[in-house]
Amino acid sequence: MGRKTLQNRRDRALGSGAELFYDAPLEIVRGDGVLLFDRDGRSYVDMYNNVPVVGHANPAIVAAMAEQQATLNVHSRYLHEGIIAFAERYAGLHHDGIESVVFSCSGTEAVEVAVQIARLATGARGLVCTDAAYHGNTQLVGSMSYLWRAPPQSGEIRAFPYPDLYRPLKDGLGEGELCDAYLERVAHAIASLKAEGRGFAALIMCSIFANEGPPEIPSGFMAKVTDLVHREGGLVIADEVQSGYGRTGRWWGYQKTDFVPDIVVTGKPMGNGLPISATGARKDLVDAFRARKDYFNTCAATPLQAAVGMAVLDEIERFDLVRNAAEVGDRLTARLKERVSQYEVIGDARGYGLFIGVELVKDKASKEPDAALALSLSNRLKDMGFLLSYSGKYHNVLKIRPPLVFSHDNAEAFLAAFDECLSR
Amino acid sequence: MGRKTLQNRRDRALGSGAELFYDAPLEIVRGDGVLLFDRDGRSYVDMYNNVPVVGHANPAIVAAMAEQQATLNVHSRYLHEGIIAFAERYAGLHHDGIESVVFSCSGTEAVEVAVQIARLATGARGLVCTDAAYHGNTQLVGSMSYLWRAPPQSGEIRAFPYPDLYRPLKDGLGEGELCDAYLERVAHAIASLKAEGRGFAALIMCSIFANEGPPEIPSGFMAKVTDLVHREGGLVIADEVQSGYGRTGRWWGYQKTDFVPDIVVTGKPMGNGLPISATGARKDLVDAFRARKDYFNTCAATPLQAAVGMAVLDEIERFDLVRNAAEVGDRLTARLKERVSQYEVIGDARGYGLFIGVELVKDKASKEPDAALALSLSNRLKDMGFLLSYSGKYHNVLKIRPPLVFSHDNAEAFLAAFDECLSR
Repeated sequence: MGRKTLQNRRDRALGSGAELFYDAPLEIVRGDGVLLFDRDGRSYVDMYNNVPVVGHANPAIVAAMAEQQATLNVHSRYLHEGIIAFAERYAGLHHDGIESVVFSCSGTEAVEVAVQIARLATGARGLVCTDAAYHGNTQLVGSMSYLWRAPPQSGEIRAFPYPDLYRPLKDGLGEGELCDAYLERVAHAIASLKAEGRGFAALIMCSIFANEGPPEIPSGFMAKVTDLVHREGGLVIADEVQSGYGRTGRWWGYQKTDFVPDIVVTGKPMGNGLPISATGARKDLVDAFRARKDYFNTCAATPLQAAVGMAVLDEIERFDLVRNAAEVGDRLTARLKERVSQYEVIGDARGYGLFIGVELVKDKASKEPDAALALSLSNRLKDMGFLLSYSGKYHNVLKIRPPLVFSHDNAEAFLAAFDECLSR
Repeated sequence: MGRKTLQNRRDRALGSGAELFYDAPLEIVRGDGVLLFDRDGRSYVDMYNNVPVVGHANPAIVAAMAEQQATLNVHSRYLHEGIIAFAERYAGLHHDGIESVVFSCSGTEAVEVAVQIARLATGARGLVCTDAAYHGNTQLVGSMSYLWRAPPQSGEIRAFPYPDLYRPLKDGLGEGELCDAYLERVAHAIASLKAEGRGFAALIMCSIFANEGPPEIPSGFMAKVTDLVHREGGLVIADEVQSGYGRTGRWWGYQKTDFVPDIVVTGKPMGNGLPISATGARKDLVDAFRARKDYFNTCAATPLQAAVGMAVLDEIERFDLVRNAAEVGDRLTARLKERVSQYEVIGDARGYGLFIGVELVKDKASKEPDAALALSLSNRLKDMGFLLSYSGKYHNVLKIRPPLVFSHDNAEAFLAAFDECLSR
């Protein structure tokens, strides 16, 4: 069947406008490690997908999944060693303040739990996030997600401008002053919630502001904003859905950007494609949530989630993928930084391990975002066998976020294609 | 390791108060068909779990899951035949007005999508549900879930008393008058939303009011309430998370209770333990949602969900499980109805296929709910090898909701144990 026919069927089955990548969408039929294959057998280096963190079709994950599903997969109101051991291991990977875990199925659900925990702990409703955040898709979490629209300045949510050295809030400031300027905006958001009688429950942020860029952050901002939040009586929720699980070259994004969150939220890579997410916090915070909310999530905290979640952690350790993310990511970022001076359209390149952004601009002086170029480059690179996408507040940042099995050789091959594209 | 030690570890790992069934919680290690096994090898007939709809550890599901995970499991922004075919087959099982599908991971997420679709279609915010509903656990969906607390009578949500012949809204009415009395309460809820300027977007209800009882519904109520909702400019959302997938002896609960919803929501049984959920509606409604919401759910609408979802449908058809639910369920319900006259504490017994409720009361005259008896019976039946739970607004209804592979023999064995329990 032709691709066009498949697209027509898809328009009816899933509704017109269900998101599809690329001008000529790809029909992917198989994956293997860092590679994806279309129906003609053509291979593509996957530089986009962070869910198959230990590689597409990883046989250890398949085996763990099949074995557990063939043994037992049931909800969490019976005792089961597996899910407890997984929660213990997961918490143990975090700082000491993360003691207890609430499992769910998606990052969105985990953020919902985090907000409920924070609101119960503080007795307040107000939430603060950045003005280009994405945290998920429910009514609540969607109202903290501004990829495609302006943030509200009333109600229970307030947005502050995400910290960014490349496109600073004000020109002409030193880094310390710029940091203070961003902190002032956070303080203003909190004050405005309090003035309206909402109170202040939590600030939520991705630990590397993944969807926002990811930007380079003024030195000290993350620790200082955490202090500010605590002084104001709120909690810090780290959204580690993208930055966690070794992506940055550390286990957690908050280790890389140097702050200590009260609540952590993880999702996508936890199950290498099996829906798993988690919210972690101090035991007394989770206890209060359990006592007040009777939270139950039928397909979460199951033996299947536990077995697959354990296998993913095993594979990350077995292949030393956190170190791989650091080494391959840092070298690739350095090589991309070299290109900033070589190409007028590359305004900036920066990254945290294997989450790398290349900022495309009309010219270096104006820094005017070039979203059209980001779109066309992603299409051309796809034709050359490399799958990536774009993000950022202005949709002009090439987004490189491969499975963590991505190698130096993959990176070099990409750089050659990237140069060829840009030289044309 | 002892059960007590495991419970202590669980209290720390998942937080104290994470829900556990039974006074002496069960450690379940294995499942097979309708049976669950504890760590001592003791078997229990599972009469509670609706997720493993085609049986625990069903080998066809294991095979489909393993094969697809070993081939490809990636998000939905590439074309994939499997997910389109699954959406087509799913929609085809519904009435003609369900054309397009939005996949997600949990019933809660699917309800969130349904509400967004209804609000976009109507331009209104207000929602109506029953006063003992459970639809899920996010901020929005949790506010339409009253298992453990009183419903609000302000804001964007209004609750109406669920229809019930056993505990009618008013005594001394004929069934037709009683039906009208319930409809009046729905009309009042809608009017109150409109009076407050919220507008009326949708009424959401489980097609058999599963958590509410399930009650016997006054004849004609479901079709009449649907007409009322449409006259008032709203949409009807059928929550088929419990009533769907053959449970009632028909494919969908709304076929059993005889109404035609505008939006359908399904979840739990779709993946036999793999998180899958779906929201179905007319194509123009889903198109409007796609156009306005940029909805994306990373681990949903994946080849894995599709392959497992297809295998579940295959198994339901192969073993004729919809018919099995009708035959075994109806006979078991009839046998339980016989016991209403035999035992003073059984106030009522009723069911829809293999969703059966046995209403326990202090005595038949007062109908005073006996939640303590429901709790103790579920504990005693567990000790005798039968796993069930209780539900209902007063927590006094024994809830029988087994995997659909539950047989006449299972039912007879249960009845013997049930009689022994009650005779003591």
